[in-house]
Amino acid sequence: MMVHAHRALMAIPVRLTLRSFASSAAALKWEGGVSMVQGASRGIGLEFVKQLLEKNEKGHVIATCRNPTGATGLLELKNEFAERLNILPLDVTVESTIEESAKSITESHGSLNLLINASGILSIPSVLQPETTLSKVNKSSMMLSYEVNAVGPILVIKHMWPLLKAGGGFGTERDVAVVANLSARVGSIGDNRLGGWHSYRASKAALNQLTKTISVEFARKKDPVACILLHPGTVDTDLSRPFQRNVPADKLFTKEFSVQKLLTIINSTKQQDNGKFFAWDGQEIPW
Amino acid sequence: MMVHAHRALMAIPVRLTLRSFASSAAALKWEGGVSMVQGASRGIGLEFVKQLLEKNEKGHVIATCRNPTGATGLLELKNEFAERLNILPLDVTVESTIEESAKSITESHGSLNLLINASGILSIPSVLQPETTLSKVNKSSMMLSYEVNAVGPILVIKHMWPLLKAGGGFGTERDVAVVANLSARVGSIGDNRLGGWHSYRASKAALNQLTKTISVEFARKKDPVACILLHPGTVDTDLSRPFQRNVPADKLFTKEFSVQKLLTIINSTKQQDNGKFFAWDGQEIPW
Repeated sequence: MMVHAHRALMAIPVRLTLRSFASSAAALKWEGGVSMVQGASRGIGLEFVKQLLEKNEKGHVIATCRNPTGATGLLELKNEFAERLNILPLDVTVESTIEESAKSITESHGSLNLLINASGILSIPSVLQPETTLSKVNKSSMMLSYEVNAVGPILVIKHMWPLLKAGGGFGTERDVAVVANLSARVGSIGDNRLGGWHSYRASKAALNQLTKTISVEFARKKDPVACILLHPGTVDTDLSRPFQRNVPADKLFTKEFSVQKLLTIINSTKQQDNGKFFAWDGQEIPW
Repeated sequence: MMVHAHRALMAIPVRLTLRSFASSAAALKWEGGVSMVQGASRGIGLEFVKQLLEKNEKGHVIATCRNPTGATGLLELKNEFAERLNILPLDVTVESTIEESAKSITESHGSLNLLINASGILSIPSVLQPETTLSKVNKSSMMLSYEVNAVGPILVIKHMWPLLKAGGGFGTERDVAVVANLSARVGSIGDNRLGGWHSYRASKAALNQLTKTISVEFARKKDPVACILLHPGTVDTDLSRPFQRNVPADKLFTKEFSVQKLLTIINSTKQQDNGKFFAWDGQEIPW
């Protein structure tokens, strides 16, 4: 049901016949590029959609979220940017919705130049709480964090891979398509000095490992795609709000600032950055 | 049902009254120490049990596995070592069996000086196959590997923590109790040059992160417990058998050799090794 809801929100797809697909690869290329932001209803994801649309007046953006009807921020952008923004329903925990999105993008655009996996969970009232001690670790929180933060983004890359290969860097200033997975410094094992947050830390370390693993395959196959991991800093969003108390004011970023920094990194990504983990300021973070 | 099976296999517990527990901590200490091997029915785990019993003639060993009735290797050792070996049913995917084991050990020994988490899965015919490409990644394999290889060992530590604190290094040559989690070099993100094996690599990277996270808490609380991660090398066991083809003969270890090396590391573990990741030869492995 979710998959087929809200077709009305999507731009009318540019339908390519098999013939035009086969005869003209250029039909799949879009000046200004095609970016997909997964997890785009709020927070950092929504801000990525906004800046991608505002800063690149020819760029197309596909924004996905679990429930487009309730995504008021995206709907406002849709009013403003009309056919340059497509909104698709996608739930990273339901692989069929990822496949449906891939099919839909294949029909509407035929290629992708950027995929940003911005979805993620840290806490859900009365369901998931970042653990303050080993005694509070429980299996359901561990499994849920892993499913959403590690497995989900990887399944999205799996299904968007053909589109990213088709797109490469075409229409952008880059030589390659980019997959940018939102990780976090607390996912770093080497940098783990405070402990706690077991579920979240483990899921992000796993995401780092999976992204590295995928980057090796992309490099070996000489695909025009580079995978990077990004730490956005501590950003003032719904995700971090319950945990901002001990964050100094100058270390708590607005989403506008963080996304601006992250887009600078994304836009300058080169083949040799494939498999690397960057903080918002461009510094590499140890594994 | 599994939890209560085979009580007959266990040594008669040394029952401590609450009074003796409170008045004499020494009653919880065992000369030669008490070691627990989780995942002990075969492979490296079984070999750990054997060498722990053979090399330390006063040491007690608690061996756990999913199905003690079918664990012929353990049953043979039980015949030989009688009351120095307890066998308990424990399935890392069923937390209640972990709690039952902790209760049983609390009654029978009251302390632990060593916990080796040796269970792990890499492949199960027609269920789980190490992935050769991103295209073959699927959610069920990802979730199963994580549940068994990362979450399971952490839940075991959670429930054995009070026993390890009670035991510390008493009765051993060490100052601290040791938690040794069997990891693998392929879990290293920094060392990942070949790609593939997504489920397994991610689960072991997560295990590394979780072990590091726990080590930080143990250190902060000044618990007499050190957590380490061990890479056993490629060992000739059921786990590695389907994947030994490309392993040079001198790089394929017998389980006797690998466990001998790993026990040397375990026996010389100091507080400052807490949170480190060692290969069989004592070299540290990058995260």
